[in-house]
Amino acid sequence: MQLLKDRILAEGKVLPGNIIKVDGFLNHRVDTRLMEAIAEEFKKYFDVSDITMVLTAEASGIALATICAQKYNVPMVFAKKAKSDNIEGGLYHSEVFSYTYKKKVTQLLSKEWMTSTDRVLIVDDFMANGEAVRGLCDLVDQAGATLVGIGIAVEKGFQGGGDRLRDMDLNYHALAVIDSADENGIVFRPDEI
Amino acid sequence: MQLLKDRILAEGKVLPGNIIKVDGFLNHRVDTRLMEAIAEEFKKYFDVSDITMVLTAEASGIALATICAQKYNVPMVFAKKAKSDNIEGGLYHSEVFSYTYKKKVTQLLSKEWMTSTDRVLIVDDFMANGEAVRGLCDLVDQAGATLVGIGIAVEKGFQGGGDRLRDMDLNYHALAVIDSADENGIVFRPDEI
Repeated sequence: MQLLKDRILAEGKVLPGNIIKVDGFLNHRVDTRLMEAIAEEFKKYFDVSDITMVLTAEASGIALATICAQKYNVPMVFAKKAKSDNIEGGLYHSEVFSYTYKKKVTQLLSKEWMTSTDRVLIVDDFMANGEAVRGLCDLVDQAGATLVGIGIAVEKGFQGGGDRLRDMDLNYHALAVIDSADENGIVFRPDEI
Repeated sequence: MQLLKDRILAEGKVLPGNIIKVDGFLNHRVDTRLMEAIAEEFKKYFDVSDITMVLTAEASGIALATICAQKYNVPMVFAKKAKSDNIEGGLYHSEVFSYTYKKKVTQLLSKEWMTSTDRVLIVDDFMANGEAVRGLCDLVDQAGATLVGIGIAVEKGFQGGGDRLRDMDLNYHALAVIDSADENGIVFRPDEI
């Protein structure tokens, strides 16, 4: 997606350790117009008329997932990192390792909000090792729901998470795949379409 | 806001300990059409043409704040609970106690994304003791930015957080103030307008 790549080149930064900083428009300060464009772009890859919900992980995926859910006219559900006292009944539960935060993260989802009849589009703003997405897929499995697809805005292609999902024959698409990011700049993989 | 109150009465539940469960449409599964209506309603209380950003706290405030930012044509910024490795430079920092999660929570905001020229509308989906909002106000103070107002969707009025903010002469408004919630049901405070 050229608009997203252009934005990453214009405003993104590479920090030591191949860390890609896009927090001015994607995951700390959020440009909702860009989120709208991303939600539109996902329609090229996923039949959004066929889904019953958009699922993401707390916290930074929520902004993009909200705009996607708005555009696709379905509810947005986010997996929580910790149990709050306002959830009752059973929970789906997965454990993943967050490389961003360097610790194990729990993903919790109330059984009330995803069931075997759901058709789920997983959306996230950023993917590196793919652990958060793996956990979300696990939640969909636990519910016996149908995974329609996985849409990611920015993928760190050189960390392998995206390629592992591509190999699994899931309907996985990322709109800006970064193949290298270092002191020489950012190199993107060519767009799929 | 009658639409919001009706929804709380139709789908909300009171759990033991005066806990109000609205996670089917507000803070776990999110109805984006309702978020749009709330964002419109806030316009009755705040001059949204006069703000430069919407500020909220991770995580459940992000969905509502995203739709507000979209409607008001400004960026959405959320305070983070933990430092991730993709933030560089200085941080504003506040510490609050979360009654929902029964622990101290840190709020972090990159100094890059709020400065003294900003005019900030704080938005959150739910307020009880008001600790999260107090922390956000503290972040605005640290930046030397201008606090234009504080908009809350659902306030647990009987826990005092909202009344403390009203006493402080801030431009504070909540759209559904719950004055009591127990086995007899939910009682709302009359709307301001």
